[in-house]
Amino acid sequence: MTEPRTPTDCSAGRLRVLGIDPGLGLTGYGLVDLARRAVEPTLLEAGVFKLDAKRSLEVRLQQLHEDLSALIAEHSPARVAVEQLYAHYTHPRTAILMGHARGVILQVATAAGLPVESLAATEVKKSLTGNGHATKRQMQLAVQAQCRLAAPPEPPDVADAIAIALTHARRIAIDRVVTR
Amino acid sequence: MTEPRTPTDCSAGRLRVLGIDPGLGLTGYGLVDLARRAVEPTLLEAGVFKLDAKRSLEVRLQQLHEDLSALIAEHSPARVAVEQLYAHYTHPRTAILMGHARGVILQVATAAGLPVESLAATEVKKSLTGNGHATKRQMQLAVQAQCRLAAPPEPPDVADAIAIALTHARRIAIDRVVTR
Repeated sequence: MTEPRTPTDCSAGRLRVLGIDPGLGLTGYGLVDLARRAVEPTLLEAGVFKLDAKRSLEVRLQQLHEDLSALIAEHSPARVAVEQLYAHYTHPRTAILMGHARGVILQVATAAGLPVESLAATEVKKSLTGNGHATKRQMQLAVQAQCRLAAPPEPPDVADAIAIALTHARRIAIDRVVTR
Repeated sequence: MTEPRTPTDCSAGRLRVLGIDPGLGLTGYGLVDLARRAVEPTLLEAGVFKLDAKRSLEVRLQQLHEDLSALIAEHSPARVAVEQLYAHYTHPRTAILMGHARGVILQVATAAGLPVESLAATEVKKSLTGNGHATKRQMQLAVQAQCRLAAPPEPPDVADAIAIALTHARRIAIDRVVTR
């Protein structure tokens, strides 16, 4: 089995972080780059994987596996940050189904040798807006402002994925400053 | 993407069914064969994938992916039956984590081109014992008796996986009798 690479793999140049907001309908993704001595990451690309709701769960999971594998092969991120799932969902069935998608995402990242970090939605919201309970709209506007985009990222799943990548990349940047 | 094979792939000879009881610690599996005109399947092999609880979730999922892929490659089942997960778990966190393992299992089966059937635990228990709320011990004894084993399958996860495979294979056998 391939062991995850260590964080030192970023020391040579830019560090690319892939943020993922898992879902069975839409899975948002955002790629950010952190230059060697930069404190602030820059947005490279973002989007969603749309899974066909009319297909069976297993076919959607296989599609997600293929889409994510292709994205990783194309952009070669060094690390993956994924939204954490919690047990206090009002819809436990939804949480369990999202767990299926998240399991596939974690496996694909690990198979590619990438270290995976799980971030709580509240941490990410607090990091971008100062409010751990920011609305989807607030998150879209915060991502638009901080990435200097012409319009808020749509759908909100894209904004969430970019926010996850930004949060993780900024923490790495701060750790580098502290340990420099 | 590979499309699942149709049920007619079993008409030429024996039909091999892989039953899986998903878990993050232990995932049980059982392989049964249904001969062409048989009504009762026979047990081929069963066991558990043990995942190292000290490793991270993503490393365990990758190990499960590799172990299950190897099992399918070795035994070439025609169909996979997996225990369904429900939302009324007393421990939602456990259910969400098991969802991760189940997502990987469904994806591996689909990537191998195998149709997947989800069976409720209560259906499987009722099928083997007549009681949808049979205990683990009752399930072990029922599997021992029906597969004519010298001892009850251990751990209970193995008995559950065999029971899932038996239930699915018997339904196929009955369907064949009805449509013959």
